Amino acid sequence: MLKKNIPGDTIKRLPVYLRNLLNLKKEGKKIVSSKEITFSLNISPVQFRKDLSYFGKFGKRGVGYDVDNLIKMLKKIIGIDKKIKVILVGVGRLGSALIRYKGFSSMNMEIIGAFDNDPNKIGKKIEEIEIMSMDRMPEFLKRNKIEVGIICVPFDKAQEVAEHMIKSGIKGILNFAPTRLNLSKNIFVNYVDMASELGFLIFKLKNL
Amino acid sequence: MLKKNIPGDTIKRLPVYLRNLLNLKKEGKKIVSSKEITFSLNISPVQFRKDLSYFGKFGKRGVGYDVDNLIKMLKKIIGIDKKIKVILVGVGRLGSALIRYKGFSSMNMEIIGAFDNDPNKIGKKIEEIEIMSMDRMPEFLKRNKIEVGIICVPFDKAQEVAEHMIKSGIKGILNFAPTRLNLSKNIFVNYVDMASELGFLIFKLKNL
Repeated sequence: MLKKNIPGDTIKRLPVYLRNLLNLKKEGKKIVSSKEITFSLNISPVQFRKDLSYFGKFGKRGVGYDVDNLIKMLKKIIGIDKKIKVILVGVGRLGSALIRYKGFSSMNMEIIGAFDNDPNKIGKKIEEIEIMSMDRMPEFLKRNKIEVGIICVPFDKAQEVAEHMIKSGIKGILNFAPTRLNLSKNIFVNYVDMASELGFLIFKLKNL
Repeated sequence: MLKKNIPGDTIKRLPVYLRNLLNLKKEGKKIVSSKEITFSLNISPVQFRKDLSYFGKFGKRGVGYDVDNLIKMLKKIIGIDKKIKVILVGVGRLGSALIRYKGFSSMNMEIIGAFDNDPNKIGKKIEEIEIMSMDRMPEFLKRNKIEVGIICVPFDKAQEVAEHMIKSGIKGILNFAPTRLNLSKNIFVNYVDMASELGFLIFKLKNL
């Protein structure tokens, strides 16, 4: 089903559509048009239909999209039709905020374990999530079949931590530390770089 | 100097290069090659040179880049050659973590004011940053010549908050609330959508 060369921006919009469809479902909507789906998203209906077209045919011309069916399909395409369990490493302020972040669970993604090297944090809990020592990672990942981890450590610890995560069984990393990681090509890393995003905004303001 | 149609990814990499150059400068480097600049970034030297080429000629073939000069030029291109002051709205867990985040200041960006509608928070301080009531925003923005704001409120408050910010004088918004904003076209919005980034990672892992 999957075509190659799907733009990254298309893939990143899928969870945005999904989240909105979940809201529309809550409002009791059963069938929606592409206009209704995109109205509050500041994305054009044309863009939405183009994004979906990479993955097959959905919806009926002149009728619209079945909300339940499109939710199901989007979850399947993204890979969150079953709950995806992830770990988080680095329980500082940002890490703690992410553990408590409510935006993951509605999308079938859940942080179920946290790791830190601070003895004062190890053994404590945040929202039922235990903070564990780093050496417990391999066993925890194996037992819970986890391959995805979030890095929230300081920038000068991120490379070392990433290598430990990979040795422990992690295959994909979402990195919040403000640094790039130098890892084997078969590991997928996605960066959330807050200073870069703010810089991008400042650039755009200056030039538009 | 500015060519049109510069890819967003190119612009987002500029702060990444800048941060690395600041590190190289700290290490005492005066002249660096594109290989040295990109080595720890998991970005190819070719990509780096291509990114820079949108903005002019830098560096000398066979010699390399003057670190101080390239830092200066990158700051100027991004628009952070002078300190950019920003505000943050929504001092919950994520907002508090961002106020304390050290990654902005090295890039000449600084959160200097915070706003919330919770009377228990108003008047308190986080790291010398005062939490103010929403009605103080217009005066504060004007006095400090601020046009950029960060949104960290719950998703169902974000639209209303964004509209208040714009009325108060904000021209660009970095939105961490997991929702899209429907605003006038002359307002620039950049989204940091954590569930979308994690979903993107899961998609890539499943399909690569």
